[in-house]
Order: sequence, then C-alpha cells, then structure tokens
Amino acid sequence: MINVGIVGATGYAGEELIDILLRHPNVRIVNLSAKIDKPLSISEIFPRFKEKISLVCSEPDLKEIISKCDLVFLALPHTASMDIVPKLLAGGKKKVIDLSADYRLRDTKIYEFFYKTKQKDKTNLERAVYGLPELYREKIKKTYLVANPGCYPTAAILALAPAVSLDLVDLSSIIIDAKSGVTGAGRKIDAGFQFSEVNEDFKAYKVGLHQHGPEIDQELSNLSGEKINITFVPHLLPLSRGILETIYVKKAPSSKLQAPSLVSLYKKFYKKEPFVRVKDEGSFPRIKDVVGTNFCDIGIKDCGSNIIIISAIDNLLKGASGQAVQNMNIMYGFPENMGLI
Amino acid sequence: MINVGIVGATGYAGEELIDILLRHPNVRIVNLSAKIDKPLSISEIFPRFKEKISLVCSEPDLKEIISKCDLVFLALPHTASMDIVPKLLAGGKKKVIDLSADYRLRDTKIYEFFYKTKQKDKTNLERAVYGLPELYREKIKKTYLVANPGCYPTAAILALAPAVSLDLVDLSSIIIDAKSGVTGAGRKIDAGFQFSEVNEDFKAYKVGLHQHGPEIDQELSNLSGEKINITFVPHLLPLSRGILETIYVKKAPSSKLQAPSLVSLYKKFYKKEPFVRVKDEGSFPRIKDVVGTNFCDIGIKDCGSNIIIISAIDNLLKGASGQAVQNMNIMYGFPENMGLI
Amino acid sequence: MINVGIVGATGYAGEELIDILLRHPNVRIVNLSAKIDKPLSISEIFPRFKEKISLVCSEPDLKEIISKCDLVFLALPHTASMDIVPKLLAGGKKKVIDLSADYRLRDTKIYEFFYKTKQKDKTNLERAVYGLPELYREKIKKTYLVANPGCYPTAAILALAPAVSLDLVDLSSIIIDAKSGVTGAGRKIDAGFQFSEVNEDFKAYKVGLHQHGPEIDQELSNLSGEKINITFVPHLLPLSRGILETIYVKKAPSSKLQAPSLVSLYKKFYKKEPFVRVKDEGSFPRIKDVVGTNFCDIGIKDCGSNIIIISAIDNLLKGASGQAVQNMNIMYGFPENMGLI
Amino acid sequence: MINVGIVGATGYAGEELIDILLRHPNVRIVNLSAKIDKPLSISEIFPRFKEKISLVCSEPDLKEIISKCDLVFLALPHTASMDIVPKLLAGGKKKVIDLSADYRLRDTKIYEFFYKTKQKDKTNLERAVYGLPELYREKIKKTYLVANPGCYPTAAILALAPAVSLDLVDLSSIIIDAKSGVTGAGRKIDAGFQFSEVNEDFKAYKVGLHQHGPEIDQELSNLSGEKINITFVPHLLPLSRGILETIYVKKAPSSKLQAPSLVSLYKKFYKKEPFVRVKDEGSFPRIKDVVGTNFCDIGIKDCGSNIIIISAIDNLLKGASGQAVQNMNIMYGFPENMGLI
Repeated sequence: MINVGIVGATGYAGEELIDILLRHPNVRIVNLSAKIDKPLSISEIFPRFKEKISLVCSEPDLKEIISKCDLVFLALPHTASMDIVPKLLAGGKKKVIDLSADYRLRDTKIYEFFYKTKQKDKTNLERAVYGLPELYREKIKKTYLVANPGCYPTAAILALAPAVSLDLVDLSSIIIDAKSGVTGAGRKIDAGFQFSEVNEDFKAYKVGLHQHGPEIDQELSNLSGEKINITFVPHLLPLSRGILETIYVKKAPSSKLQAPSLVSLYKKFYKKEPFVRVKDEGSFPRIKDVVGTNFCDIGIKDCGSNIIIISAIDNLLKGASGQAVQNMNIMYGFPENMGLI
Repeated sequence: MINVGIVGATGYAGEELIDILLRHPNVRIVNLSAKIDKPLSISEIFPRFKEKISLVCSEPDLKEIISKCDLVFLALPHTASMDIVPKLLAGGKKKVIDLSADYRLRDTKIYEFFYKTKQKDKTNLERAVYGLPELYREKIKKTYLVANPGCYPTAAILALAPAVSLDLVDLSSIIIDAKSGVTGAGRKIDAGFQFSEVNEDFKAYKVGLHQHGPEIDQELSNLSGEKINITFVPHLLPLSRGILETIYVKKAPSSKLQAPSLVSLYKKFYKKEPFVRVKDEGSFPRIKDVVGTNFCDIGIKDCGSNIIIISAIDNLLKGASGQAVQNMNIMYGFPENMGLI
Repeated sequence: MINVGIVGATGYAGEELIDILLRHPNVRIVNLSAKIDKPLSISEIFPRFKEKISLVCSEPDLKEIISKCDLVFLALPHTASMDIVPKLLAGGKKKVIDLSADYRLRDTKIYEFFYKTKQKDKTNLERAVYGLPELYREKIKKTYLVANPGCYPTAAILALAPAVSLDLVDLSSIIIDAKSGVTGAGRKIDAGFQFSEVNEDFKAYKVGLHQHGPEIDQELSNLSGEKINITFVPHLLPLSRGILETIYVKKAPSSKLQAPSLVSLYKKFYKKEPFVRVKDEGSFPRIKDVVGTNFCDIGIKDCGSNIIIISAIDNLLKGASGQAVQNMNIMYGFPENMGLI
Repeated sequence: MINVGIVGATGYAGEELIDILLRHPNVRIVNLSAKIDKPLSISEIFPRFKEKISLVCSEPDLKEIISKCDLVFLALPHTASMDIVPKLLAGGKKKVIDLSADYRLRDTKIYEFFYKTKQKDKTNLERAVYGLPELYREKIKKTYLVANPGCYPTAAILALAPAVSLDLVDLSSIIIDAKSGVTGAGRKIDAGFQFSEVNEDFKAYKVGLHQHGPEIDQELSNLSGEKINITFVPHLLPLSRGILETIYVKKAPSSKLQAPSLVSLYKKFYKKEPFVRVKDEGSFPRIKDVVGTNFCDIGIKDCGSNIIIISAIDNLLKGASGQAVQNMNIMYGFPENMGLI
C-alpha cells in the first residue's frame, strides 16, 4: 500500500488520476492540490466523486506533500513542474511522475523554442526517464522521475516503433495526420474551445508547429539512430476523448515485406505488451474501442510501396493518466494492469 | 432600399443578422460595430462571410451610425442598450430594434431585480413595443422602438397565447419545462460552456430563477387580464441551436373542450400567421424542423383534465434575429417573410 | 465465486454487464449468448473487450446455460424473456435477473396493452420481485427472480419515493418531464436513431403513451396506497448515455414543509443508501455527474405550493446493468457496491 | 423561369436541392419523385418544408416528368440513374444533372469494379460532362448531361488542381487524408450510422478502397497528362455536414517555389471563381466556415520539400446539391451564384 499525492488535481488528467486510483487496491490518495482560490472539497469540484472520496483540495503545500506521500503525480500545465520537481526529489526518497512536457525533451533549445521558457532543471532532466513502458520499461523500474509522454507522441511512437526498429521505412517520409478530442487541450477556458465553436466543426491547428512534433522526432530518432523529421498535422475532433492517428510512410528501399508479414511482425513486436493490441489484417482501430481503456490499438495496411498505420488511444488514459498509473505500477513492481481494467 | 446598422455585430445574434440581411433584397448593411479591441474586417471575424461582405467592424460611432442608417439593430448584452437608445432616437427619425431585454419588462423593479442594474431610460421604455408580431403587429407598424422578445418567451407565449386568450386554462397551473441549445447564452467565454462541459451532458439551470420567467408572466398576464405566475425551468441541451418547450396546464373548470377541437382552435388562431405552424393531431414539433427557419412549430395534446403543449423555434431566428427582421419588415411595410425563406 | 451467464450479450445492456462483471472479483462469466447468425468471439463483436475476455457468443443453449451458471442475466428485448424464464427456473436452483419488462407489471392487462403480447408466465410473474433495492431490498435477498426496473421508472420512483411515502404531495398532480440519451432505446437499427436524425435535434416522443408510465404508476400507487396516474412525457437527447427527469408536483394540502426541511427529509430517507445522492439545497443533478456510475442524484426545490424534483442516472447503469449487478450483490450477500465503483 | 423535377427527392441531396431551389428566383419545382411506398406530401416527409411547398412526392412517372420539366436532377443511389437517363434524354430537349457516380468514370472497368454493376449506358457516358465548373465550365454550358462530382473528389481536385496544373508536385506522392460528416453516406438505415455508433467516435473506413479514389485519379490524370494514383484514406466524423481534407505532396524536383508564392499562385488560379476561397498565408479552412455555403476553402503551407494543402466544403452543397445548382445556373446562363447565397 502506497500513499500518493496529486498536484494539479483539478484538471482533466488530475480528475482521471483520482478516478483510476480510487479503484487501485494498492494505493491510498492522501493529498490533492491545485492552483485554487480557496480550499474546496474535491467532491464539490467534481460532484461525480461525492461519497467516493472526501479529501480537500488546496494550494500545494510541499512540506506536507513530502511528509505524507511516497509518490507524487504532477498534472500541471507545462513549465510549472520544473519549480516543484527539484524540491520533491531533494530528499532522495520520493518518486515523481510528471505528466507535463518539462522533462521529456532532451534538447533544451527545442524545449525552450516550443514552450517559450527556460528549462531550469537540467540536473533532473538528465535523470528523467521517458515513461513509455513499451520502450523503456527497465529504466522506469529504477528511476525516481518519470517524464510521462504526451498524448499524440504515445499513439505515434507506438504505431511507428516496430517499423522503425525493424528498418522497414524510409525515415524521411513519415507523415502523421493526427486527430484529437477536446480534452487533449486540458481544462482551460478558451474562446476556441467553447461548445458552439467546436460542435459540428473540424479543423487542423498548429499546422507543422505543434510541440509534440519534436517529441516524436526525438523518440523515433533514438530508435533508429538517425535524425528524423516527421510531418505532423494535428486536428481537433468534436468529441470529448480519444486520439486517432493515420500515418503514411514509404517503405525502405531494402524492405521486401509482404502484406501478411507486416501485421505479423507488429503482433510479434508487441506480443508481451499488456496495453497494445495489433488488429488483424484488414481491420483498423476506432476511437470508441479504446475510450475508457489504457489500450493502444494499431492497424496496418501494406500498400505496395507505402504503408498506412492507424493507431488509437484514449488521450486521458494511455495518453496521460492511465499511462502514468502504468508507470507507477512498474516503479513499484505491482502487476502492470492493476487499477487499469 | 433601406440602410441598416448592427451594433453588437460580433455576437451570435449579430452574426445571424448579417447572414439574413445579406439575402434581404431591400436592405443594405452600411455599418457594423461592436465592443472590439481594434477595427477588423467582418470577414476576418467570421471567415464564413468572406467574399460576401467586406465592411469593417469597429467600436460604435454613434454620429456615423445616425448619419448613415435608417434603422439600427442593437444586439448587445443586456443593460448596454439603454445607454445608446436615447441617443439614437433623439432626432426622431431613426428606428431601433433592440434585441436585449432592456425595453421588454414594463415593471422596472422586476427588471432591476433580474438584470442587477437600474432601468435608466423610462421615457423610451414607455414607447417601446414588445416585438412579438403575432400579438402586437399593429403597434409594431407604428413604433420607432421595438423590444425584440427573448427566445424562451417567444416559444412560450406563442404556445400559450391561444389557450390563454380563449380562457381554456387554469392560469395558476402553467408549467414550462424549457430546453435550449448553447447559443441561447450568447457568445461568451465561460467555463460552463466549454465543449467538454456541455458535450454529452444535460442539466437544468437557474431553476425557478431565470430572467425570462417574468417576461413570460408579463405577456400572459396582459393576455388574460389576470396576474399570472408560471413555473419555469430552463435546461441546457448539448446542441448549438434550437429551443423546445414542453408545457403542462390544467384545463379551466369551465372549459369543455374535446381533443379535436383544441388543435383546430389553435389552427384557427394562427391561420394567417406566416411563421406559426400548428401540427396535426398526434404530431409534435422537433428542433430539427425549425432550425434554420423563422417558424415556431406547435403541437397540442388534450389529456382530459390536462393539456400538453409543445413548441419549438430556432433560438437565433424566431427567438432573436429572424424575429428582428420580421419586425423590420413590418415596420417598413415589406412582405413579412422577405429575407426569411 | 459464482458463475454467471448473459443471454442477450450483444445489446447495450449486455455489453455493459460484461464490462462491469469483468471487474467484479466474485464473478466468473461462463456463458454468453444472443440472437446471432453464427457463433462469434465476443471480442469480435465488441473489439473493446479484446484481450480482456475470449468467450464465444452463440445462440442460447439452455441446457448448457443451466448446467454451467449459478445466475443468469436476461438482457433480451421485451416479450422474449417469458419463453426462457420458466425453463431456467424449473430446477429451482438457478437465479435469474431479467432486465426486460416481462415481469415488472403486475396487471397483465396493462402489460398486454403496452407490449402487444400476452403475459404467458403468470406463475413466475407472481414470484418476481421488482428489483429496486431502495424499496425492495429484503425481498430481493430471498427471491430467485428479479424484474430489473426500467430506466425512466428508476429515476422517477427514486425521485418521488420520499415525497410520496411521507404524504407530502397531491398525488393527482405528478408531472414527469423525462429526457434520455439514445442508448435508452436499445441497440436497434432504426431510421429514427440514425446519427443525422438525432444529432442537433431534440423532441418528445410517445407523448402520454410510453410504456414506462404505467410502471411508474404501479410503484407509486404501491407506495401511497392510492391509485396514481402520472403525466409522463419522454424526450430524446442527442447524447449516448444518461437520463434526467424534471418532476413537478403540488404539495399536499396538509403538508406544511419549509424549504430546508424538504432536502433534509430526502437526505434522511436515503441516508443508508449506497447509490442515492441527495444534493444540497440549491444544487441540482446533471447527467455528467452520474454517467459511468451507479448513482442516482436527486435535487429538490421547494417553490411554495409546488415542489420541483430533478433526478439523474446513467440509463445503462442504475437504469439497467448496474442495478442488475447491485441486485445480484444483494441476492448473494456480497457488498452492495462490489464491482460498481 | 424554368421548370425542374427532382428524382430521389427523399434523400439528403434531394432535400437540399428542394431547400436551395425554393429560394431560386428563376426556378419552379414542378415534380418530386422517389422510391416510396405511397405518394406523400413532401411536407409530411420533411416537416421543415411545411407552408413552403405543397407538392406530393410519388414514384417517378417518366412521362409526366418529361412533359413537365425542362431540367431534371437525379439524386438517386449509384447505379439507378443509368436506367433513367437514356429515357429522359431521348427526346433531345431535356437537361439532366445526375448526382450519382454513374456518368463520372470514363473507364467502365473501374466503374464496374467499384460499383459492382455494368455501366449500361455508354452512349451517354461519352456525352456526359464532369460537372466541376472550375475545370469544365465551357463544356457544362453546352451539355445536356452533367455528371455532378462526388463530394470527396470536389474538395480534393479543387485543392490539387493549381499545384498539378502548374507542375509543382511530384505526382507519385499525393496523399489525401479525408474526413467527412455522416450525411456523406446518404440517408440509409444502417447499423454503422446509428447515433450511438458514430457519436463520440472517429475512424477510418474503406482504407485504400473507396470508390472516390479512382474519380480523383481520373481528374488529376486529365489535368497532368500523366497516370496518377493517389493514396486516399477517408474517415467518418461525428458531425452531420462537412468535409475537410488534409493533403500531403512532395514538391516536383524542378519546382523552386517559395512560401509566399504558393499561396499567391493559388489565389491567382482561382481569382475569378465565385466559390473558391484561398486562405491567406498561415490561415487554414475549417468545416464551420463552409457549412451552409457553396464555397470550397483552401489553405496551403509550404514546408520546404513538402506542401500541405487543406480544403473544406459542405458535402451536401459544393459536394452535391449546391454544385448541381451551380451547374444548372451555368447551363442556363443564370448568374452562377443565383440561389446559392
């Protein structure tokens, strides 16, 4: 039984963490905090939690968090985690899973370009492990600081990891056409996310400029050993939860794959993974099948010289809080799917 | 050919007015203004209007508005019209159709209670005509100032006017269960109207406290000659446009109506109205049938001692801008449906 | 550990039962069946269950069901359960929870009028217990056949039970304005439930003619000891899950309640109930707060001579499969919320 | 003033044609027909048209259609038009605009592969003009038979025509990631288009197999003079109307374009087109801006070696009935935007 705290408990990722952890048999939520005008019972903020949890949510009190919690989830806006992580890790005893982008990007210049702020904590940046279990499970087991991946990158990297690892693709040809539900943007009050703006609409945004592009580049480059620059266009779907990405790549000239073998290579690659499901030949993912689950579904079509790969996740689960709990389970040696079914 | 201006052109009602008036053969839009940081082409604000209209929208310049416009539509937030109307009407030559609540409520105490501000323009309040053509067409023809009705009141009053006028109902028994799409709240940036809050949700709000309650009371009391207090509960629908109201009344003890005669009495009452459609026996309105139109559809069921009346309108058309144009057509002697088909 | 089967596993209620029971620590799903062309893995029918359950769903084989299952959930279309229940109960050892209407209505004439078929199993009808735990928990503990309540009736009866039991209301005045998401109609292929028909629409249906009206009448009459005829108008919401009902009643002449006491009477009435949450004064339910939960939320407003009561449930959980599992928990002496959090 | 008939008046395209033509000053609708059990007033089928049009819709009576109509719109399911067109054109006096795919594909083998039926009317296939005014206006002026383009092809061809015509792209590299609202599939009753299936979901379908792929291939090949095979993946959006396509191409090796010049080349290419709007640099289309209009909005981003082109249309207007009326206007020498604003 471990004691956990959530900093940033009032956002979507925080809300989802509470929801998961209330069902986790080895976890006790002992502290909830957020940027908040005055302390409020969490069930006043989220009436759905009434009669399930009665903690009060207040401004983060680091001393109390450190004294009470074994592990802390940070579900804060980007650039806010850097101020807290060094303090939480100072004693060397706490574990932190940071859901922001602050410890994801190795190249601080890229971080600073996309997030418009200095990376102020290079010490911990070097120690942080990119929390994608399918690639870094062994490192996650041993780390004190997990940089939980972004939602788009999770779906993109899982879709491309087998093809890139196995040298199947022309690395210069990767195009990711990504579509996300509205919670992907976090709980912010914004003219662009008003119901009447999003409902019955669909559009691309940050075309070629989205901060998740370089995160995907970094991880695919790591996998391939070569510098990769993908083309990445995110779009906003008129629905609450879910991401689907349609990915187009050219086959590597050397590759001599046939259709059946591509699906089977993917199935083999992810055989032992509890949260990746590779679809059978001719079958493709849809958002409905993954919403409310921690699964990433992947479908592949071999089109001769091209490959089409489609992946889908729940942006708040495998794309954020579900993956964070999966990482916690790995860090503590719990069954990896505990609390996640 | 008349020249019109729209003050408050950037809200939903303003946008809808532009859309209608661009198709109106007897109208030229000559001035667009709104509370706005800097002047912007209206097609930058609403890209859907690109290549249809090229006016610039800036802060209202009353001098220019008065010099250029024959008629001015005010599509401003409540309490803002009172500052402008006296100036616009000062010369005695301009006509004004005010879409706010400022000139609707005869009883200034009620206005002040619900809108939290003084009614500052009692002179014009007395001259204003409540712009529901089905009840006040003759007065609208002659007035300089139309107080365009609220969206909920339009659907409620049209649904109840025949029954109340013909003494069919127990006036103390009127219950209005009203449901509106999100544009009913206007284009405001608000936590409660974010997509993820409204999508897949439904709820009542301002239970028994909505400002449209007394507006309905006032008009039904006028019709019946007695003081009426309705029970009014509005709800928020997860859709962009449309209002549907389900209304429950007891029959007046004196009433001896049979089912067929109730529908036929309604049909007779509205026989000459171009924008009220009474459904046949056993058939009821739905929002889909009225969205994009200026119609109010009404269905009636006689349940013995009770009557159920259901009415539906497009809140931005018959509930706001469409009705405003209908009023303009009446004021100028144009065919009443001009621009509205 | 008990072995359960689900007959009608391919509908919404069946799907939801699978989802809940997969998380229930004391249950093993051993048989899935439905009207189906050929046997199919349940994870082919519902890809979301892939890697969670691998049973095959085929036409119901009663022999096998009887030999394998301790308890059987029937999630069949209305009128189909009557053919199966007598066979399942014949041996006297099986327990059945029937989610259809077949064993809910005591008065077979009413059943036959609304469901257009004979009630063919009067023997079991007499033994069946109406599975609303808040009213019939003691009987549910002892029965072999639970008639699981309808979705609208669950929300309506829970909203009215305290007021009716405590003699607070004029029993002739009850008006229920009910709104349901689309899954309430079951998974049927129907022109009226096509996306483009329902999306951006809202309408009343079966006005005064819905089959859940007499079910509510029956239970409220039981509670009050008097014959009650409610006014019931259901509406179709453009969302997938959830019911909200706005209920209007007159106070009984004898009643001398004040606002604060009404809420507190409700809170007291439901104090020990694990799945009813009475909102504080001035606060009302919304669908979002109950979707995905087995809760019924209730809000009350005292309006002098009238009372407004609003209740909300997830139609597939407290309105169907969640309540069915709650009933199962009661029948077996499991903690009542097991598998339901 | 011309007299027109609509065959297939009960589908989405037929409904939309009625809606447009009711506002068209030079058109009288004189005949409505469809596959229908018994003759019904069109306002019973579509209550939104009540008090706007009172024609009866019955099974098509070709004799009557020929005697009454100058022009006939065929809004039938694919493969049904071929039976009617030869008869309608037999006299040599009628004009026909066919909204199906029957006369679009020059290569009958491709037609027969994708539509699973013989092309039975090769005579008229040769005379038919592909009704994309931006490419074939002069031919449309003179023809008696317009094959109105598909919705996906309209958005794709308009997006690519300038780049292909001006030799800017590597023709082997064209990838079209297309997303459509649900009305794109026509008004059919289908399990896959039930509200609860589509709502809150998003998925690709017919991956690499959609019948609009070869239609786009044909027209781009015509434009370039070379055989083009695009990669085309359509997706289903949870909204009623609108298409957005995100298109990825490599620049032709010879091309030396700079960012500003690409947008300006597009603006120049479409300068005189009444229904194509090229967005300014850095600005991209969204579905909301084109729904309810006949416009195709196009945005372009120059990414060095790649180009991203995004286009949006209302699938029922520029993608079907709006374009059909635009074609009619051209055929009769009416102003091209008559009835379409």
